[in-house]
Amino acid sequence: MSDTSTVRPLRASAVTEWDERADVVVAGYGIAGVCAAIEAARAGAQVLILERTGGWGGAAAMAGGFIYLGGGTPLQRTLGFEDTPENMEKFLLAALGPGVDKAKIADYCRGSVEHYHWLVANGVPFREAFWGEPGWEPPHDEGLMYSGGENAAPFNQLAKPAPRGHVPRYADKRIGRKSGGYMLMKPLAETAEGLGVQVRYDTRIRRLVVDDTDRVVGAIVTRFGKEIAVRAERGIVLATGSFAYEQRMIEGYAPRLIGRPAAAIEEHDGIGIRLAQALGADLAHMDATEVAFFGDPQLLVRGILVNGRGQRYIPEDTYPGRIGQATLLQQDNQAYLVIDEQSYEEALTTVTATPFFRQPPTWAAETVAELEAEMGLPAQALQATVDTYNLHAQDGKDPLLGKKPEWVRPIGTPLAAFDMRGFTAGFTLGGLRTDLDSRVVHVSGAPIAGLFAAGRCTSGLCAGGYVSGASLGDGSFYGRRAGIAAAKS
Amino acid sequence: MSDTSTVRPLRASAVTEWDERADVVVAGYGIAGVCAAIEAARAGAQVLILERTGGWGGAAAMAGGFIYLGGGTPLQRTLGFEDTPENMEKFLLAALGPGVDKAKIADYCRGSVEHYHWLVANGVPFREAFWGEPGWEPPHDEGLMYSGGENAAPFNQLAKPAPRGHVPRYADKRIGRKSGGYMLMKPLAETAEGLGVQVRYDTRIRRLVVDDTDRVVGAIVTRFGKEIAVRAERGIVLATGSFAYEQRMIEGYAPRLIGRPAAAIEEHDGIGIRLAQALGADLAHMDATEVAFFGDPQLLVRGILVNGRGQRYIPEDTYPGRIGQATLLQQDNQAYLVIDEQSYEEALTTVTATPFFRQPPTWAAETVAELEAEMGLPAQALQATVDTYNLHAQDGKDPLLGKKPEWVRPIGTPLAAFDMRGFTAGFTLGGLRTDLDSRVVHVSGAPIAGLFAAGRCTSGLCAGGYVSGASLGDGSFYGRRAGIAAAKS
Repeated sequence: MSDTSTVRPLRASAVTEWDERADVVVAGYGIAGVCAAIEAARAGAQVLILERTGGWGGAAAMAGGFIYLGGGTPLQRTLGFEDTPENMEKFLLAALGPGVDKAKIADYCRGSVEHYHWLVANGVPFREAFWGEPGWEPPHDEGLMYSGGENAAPFNQLAKPAPRGHVPRYADKRIGRKSGGYMLMKPLAETAEGLGVQVRYDTRIRRLVVDDTDRVVGAIVTRFGKEIAVRAERGIVLATGSFAYEQRMIEGYAPRLIGRPAAAIEEHDGIGIRLAQALGADLAHMDATEVAFFGDPQLLVRGILVNGRGQRYIPEDTYPGRIGQATLLQQDNQAYLVIDEQSYEEALTTVTATPFFRQPPTWAAETVAELEAEMGLPAQALQATVDTYNLHAQDGKDPLLGKKPEWVRPIGTPLAAFDMRGFTAGFTLGGLRTDLDSRVVHVSGAPIAGLFAAGRCTSGLCAGGYVSGASLGDGSFYGRRAGIAAAKS
Repeated sequence: MSDTSTVRPLRASAVTEWDERADVVVAGYGIAGVCAAIEAARAGAQVLILERTGGWGGAAAMAGGFIYLGGGTPLQRTLGFEDTPENMEKFLLAALGPGVDKAKIADYCRGSVEHYHWLVANGVPFREAFWGEPGWEPPHDEGLMYSGGENAAPFNQLAKPAPRGHVPRYADKRIGRKSGGYMLMKPLAETAEGLGVQVRYDTRIRRLVVDDTDRVVGAIVTRFGKEIAVRAERGIVLATGSFAYEQRMIEGYAPRLIGRPAAAIEEHDGIGIRLAQALGADLAHMDATEVAFFGDPQLLVRGILVNGRGQRYIPEDTYPGRIGQATLLQQDNQAYLVIDEQSYEEALTTVTATPFFRQPPTWAAETVAELEAEMGLPAQALQATVDTYNLHAQDGKDPLLGKKPEWVRPIGTPLAAFDMRGFTAGFTLGGLRTDLDSRVVHVSGAPIAGLFAAGRCTSGLCAGGYVSGASLGDGSFYGRRAGIAAAKS
């Protein structure tokens, strides 16, 4: 028995007997893990997946299912959208930086069409329908949607807008309506198991095992308290997810998320990151976070969003995740939505009404002066904002923030405001530094022999910004790379 | 010869001969290093400092010299300011968070008065004078000043304001006017050398040496290309400074600082952090940065500071470093100072005029409407801001941001604006996670045997916010702890 309470590596000489063996061992059966397993198996490796819970899926299976793909995918082309890898790259460099891994973004954009074909060939279906309404996700299983503010200011001036959020179709009538993420994971898990990939559920990785040259050659895992030594003949792939639920890491790296994790699962405890750190692995962008904003986009576009001082700060028609980041990170999580009665009624009658609408506004008033007083804002703070917005809105313009003309109209009366302070939650984007072959990079700059990683335990495409589909996107893309590289290792 | 191009640790068994030996080896002769050396020597250890440059001082000797001290220091009391450790702690928890190391802040506040006495006893002089004017630093060698926005909103409502920026006196006529940082380092370096501390200049740490139990027992260093093995019988203290000049780390952790390092020296290449990471050391707050703002506080308080949308965002009378952080991190580095002619003339005649004043305003105009047009802002954007400000200013109030009444007056005409976009620079605050004894903490949570660290290669008091004096403060305070712990190790 070794001490499984520490993340320190164990020397192989201390392992008296290996309980299990495989060429490639994958820790975590979410999106990165399943893609790694498929590619490793296809490359001729015997593959063993270790999954902490009782089933496949990870956070991916609970997600909306966006995969960020572009550069001219068949779905984009069929639906009439032009895109090129260079155009996609230009957008991502602007939206995900500063400090992005430029080589990774270029690589990802150039490989995106091939990756689309690979997903389709492995059973992931996309329905040929575009959803163009403001929203977080399509209401049904429309296959394509803007998911990063590509068609909103300032990005619509920097690169040709193209929707790149690809959502798997709800294909299987027998399982009823499931999330897009589930419909992504299901065919991939079936593919993996069809290729002979073995899985051990309820099995949790505890330590890495290294040989005398510091090469990773196995792992110590536990299943129902029993310790098991697993030999990895060629390599181990870490695909254990983010650190959104590890309090110490959240406090130390991404403290704005204290008390507000979301879109992650409790198993996301950063274990993969810590195991690799103990081997000297390098990290990147540990402060980066996705931030969800729980305002309804159909309301947002029709009103004006103001901060705790009553000032506008972001075009209301952009990607809601961008609104979330701006609100949490730059506005101290203070936001109010101001909307007039006419626009509110119009939003209520749209086909995309969500449960949010059933909440009444926090304040309603006959005049802006009355509203700002009820909200507790200083006199004239909100009035000045509305007056300036209206001055230009009567010409259909928003020179301050560039909201698109189709959503710009003067704010009339009576009007109301929604209190959206603290309306955010998020998950972490930072993690292990990996190269284009998903090898975990040591702080010396060299790869750590035998160790690979993908998904949210790594720093992927995002340095600070985010687009929906980036996580399932880089998780699947670099999961594949990890499987291929580990099998060859 | 070992490979000195890698930061990987070397096994002691690979060292054929030790060229130098000491009980405690200190890497870096800045503020943390000198304090570690003094305390280690006093605890009976033979101490050897390895310094990469040709002299003592590090970044500290070039700094303004603020040391953040409080809780009722003799200087505070003599100058009529009440303070307690609890009051100081309350302020720092609010100003430096979220995500601060609460134990470290409590410890630092409780030890602050003793630390003041220690500095004085070791030759650091403080002149009994308070400087109360807005500014970055006192114009001469006044010993005490507000250096963190303690007396500005919102902190003046959260804790009793007390100035805590302690600046060493320019005591030595022979050396002319030197920075406060130099006057801090000089007596401490003299104290260290008086205690028999040995120093090797032009000597650069390259690798750590560990024994078979992974305890740090020495270092491989180079001097003019020659490789030297240094044995540390009790421990090594890393005091090598920040990573402000390591491009890869800046891009990976603190990308907002790309192209704008300041208040650091080129030797700040993160070497101490990387050497310890290679041993599995844990990190914290790698994104945190001090941010300087190159606007003159005497102008700032008399005008209004607006962002790229013409909106106010911070009380202009707060600590300029807080303005810098808000501008770079929350306003995309976009700022303009708007000031009327009367206030500008008044600022010009103050005794604290700085070279900044010799730059004329970027734009001048007879009306706000004309000014905003010249600045390229949308019509009514700046007018709305000025009108709202003036409405309350005529009553001496600033309900939006809480600027103190003494600086609040309506903006008149004619008026002018200074273009302050990109007026920031900074240095990094993140680094190794250390405990209260300055032991470097492994990612497993246990200390790394034989390894200690202090100063800006560690994550100290600051999780995201900053106050001037925090770096020389925690560097000196935890430098002492490192020396004591290493000597006992």
